[in-house]
Amino acid sequence: MAEQSFPDFLKLCQQRVNQQLDYLLPDPEDPTNQPSSSNQLKSALRYSVLNGGKRIRPVLSYAAAEALGGINQDTDLVASSVELIHAYSLIHDDLPAMDDDDLRRGKPTCHIAYDEATAILAGDALQSLAFEQLTKLQHIQPKTSLQLISCLAKAAGAEGMVEGQAIDISSVDQTLNLQQLEHMHHKKTGEMILASITMGALSTGNTTTDQLSALETYGRAIGLAFQVQDDILDVISDTAVLGKQQGADQALNKPTYTALLGLDGAKEKAQQLHVEAINALAIFDHSADQLRAVADYIVSRDH
Amino acid sequence: MAEQSFPDFLKLCQQRVNQQLDYLLPDPEDPTNQPSSSNQLKSALRYSVLNGGKRIRPVLSYAAAEALGGINQDTDLVASSVELIHAYSLIHDDLPAMDDDDLRRGKPTCHIAYDEATAILAGDALQSLAFEQLTKLQHIQPKTSLQLISCLAKAAGAEGMVEGQAIDISSVDQTLNLQQLEHMHHKKTGEMILASITMGALSTGNTTTDQLSALETYGRAIGLAFQVQDDILDVISDTAVLGKQQGADQALNKPTYTALLGLDGAKEKAQQLHVEAINALAIFDHSADQLRAVADYIVSRDH
Repeated sequence: MAEQSFPDFLKLCQQRVNQQLDYLLPDPEDPTNQPSSSNQLKSALRYSVLNGGKRIRPVLSYAAAEALGGINQDTDLVASSVELIHAYSLIHDDLPAMDDDDLRRGKPTCHIAYDEATAILAGDALQSLAFEQLTKLQHIQPKTSLQLISCLAKAAGAEGMVEGQAIDISSVDQTLNLQQLEHMHHKKTGEMILASITMGALSTGNTTTDQLSALETYGRAIGLAFQVQDDILDVISDTAVLGKQQGADQALNKPTYTALLGLDGAKEKAQQLHVEAINALAIFDHSADQLRAVADYIVSRDH
Repeated sequence: MAEQSFPDFLKLCQQRVNQQLDYLLPDPEDPTNQPSSSNQLKSALRYSVLNGGKRIRPVLSYAAAEALGGINQDTDLVASSVELIHAYSLIHDDLPAMDDDDLRRGKPTCHIAYDEATAILAGDALQSLAFEQLTKLQHIQPKTSLQLISCLAKAAGAEGMVEGQAIDISSVDQTLNLQQLEHMHHKKTGEMILASITMGALSTGNTTTDQLSALETYGRAIGLAFQVQDDILDVISDTAVLGKQQGADQALNKPTYTALLGLDGAKEKAQQLHVEAINALAIFDHSADQLRAVADYIVSRDH
């Protein structure tokens, strides 16, 4: 697959992970499925997960697996697992007590389409489901599955994504310096991006320490690049293209790279991180071309 | 330990699991720990977990391990894991969008002591931490660890505890029959009680299908008995003893066993379930005496 164009690879990854997610979250309205008094919860799960998202984290898992010798069915489970964590975090981040967003990818957020209680529960259920997936891996050793689960739990938890979100919330109206902003973003989005890559690599059952270390350097760079680009897009994009309120972060007076570095400075920062990411992949041959293409995509995307 | 009195056993279990939980959740105010900008989150985690709770689920894990040949350090990790899931569910259940409770075990609930955003994030982080614990088991095979993680994920997720909570919320002002009420409670509390028992047994690395099946029958009976007793206590106890508003469920117009069966009918139901639980343990010798004592405790407790 290394000779596939990146748009084709992206589409294939999206198809694979969407198929897996569709299978995991049965449609409660489908008459062939068992009726249940918790149909609203199940409907909310599908609504929040099967929403045409970009699937960046699953794409990273697939691209890392390809760099390490090949995508298999375990990679599908890993990809669905990281996307479930991402989906849960978006539902909870959008709640009124958190970022209070009504719109996500151009559609009403979960607590608007359903209600707050359902949104809290839907997020909780998606987190459990993410971990459940990782107990079903078939091609790798059980102890590697445990390594994957540990990696996901740390990246998602109180020392990872949740810590980042806590720092983010307490940073509204605060002045962060560049180091503090970077720490917050590394926790909030970087750890899960790193985990997506590491877990994709581990799903091949075939990794060396050097390879994992190179992927970590790559992952840290593109994780930050992704956030810098987000801040740039928040300033320059239309609401229609972005699928969320343009300038929303500025309006909340959240610290951003564009606020700290200016628009040009932020663009330069994104380019530096792109170079770092590409350099980290030097130990890989063409098998890592899709990882290289993801790095290009992250700093050139317009939404 | 089978000859220990139940109060001594209870105390020992509480000490063991509290020590493990204390270790897992470092005090952010302790000057020997690394300072962090997410101290509020860490403080909320400790506040919500180290709160003098009864630790019924951990006690069940320990008692099941003892019935299967002995408690070991893996049992401590399993016990902490089920308590972390329980603690997260209480934090989220108490939120204004859910049960809107200000008081839990006589203290302000997490979102009152901190704020709603911190409470949502604290619950999320505790769920991740629960799964992380189960990747660290040392005495059992990695594939048994995966079985434990799968058991916990199913019991906690969209087909277990979260489904139960979703049904519970949608049942306010609804008339449920006995079967529907039983289904709701089996999902909401029963699945996690069952998981606590099964996981404690599995932590010994030494179980047969017959033993697990007997423990399941026992667990289903005491799970329901626990809920019936809760409904009875909601009617008859003082707020001071209960640590929450007396009559709170009635005030919310939630369906209860006492509403459906009357107070005497509910007491009879609890006794029937107690007999079922004891009968299920017939295949075990004195090693299961603490499980028997837990069953006695559940239907005789006053808070």
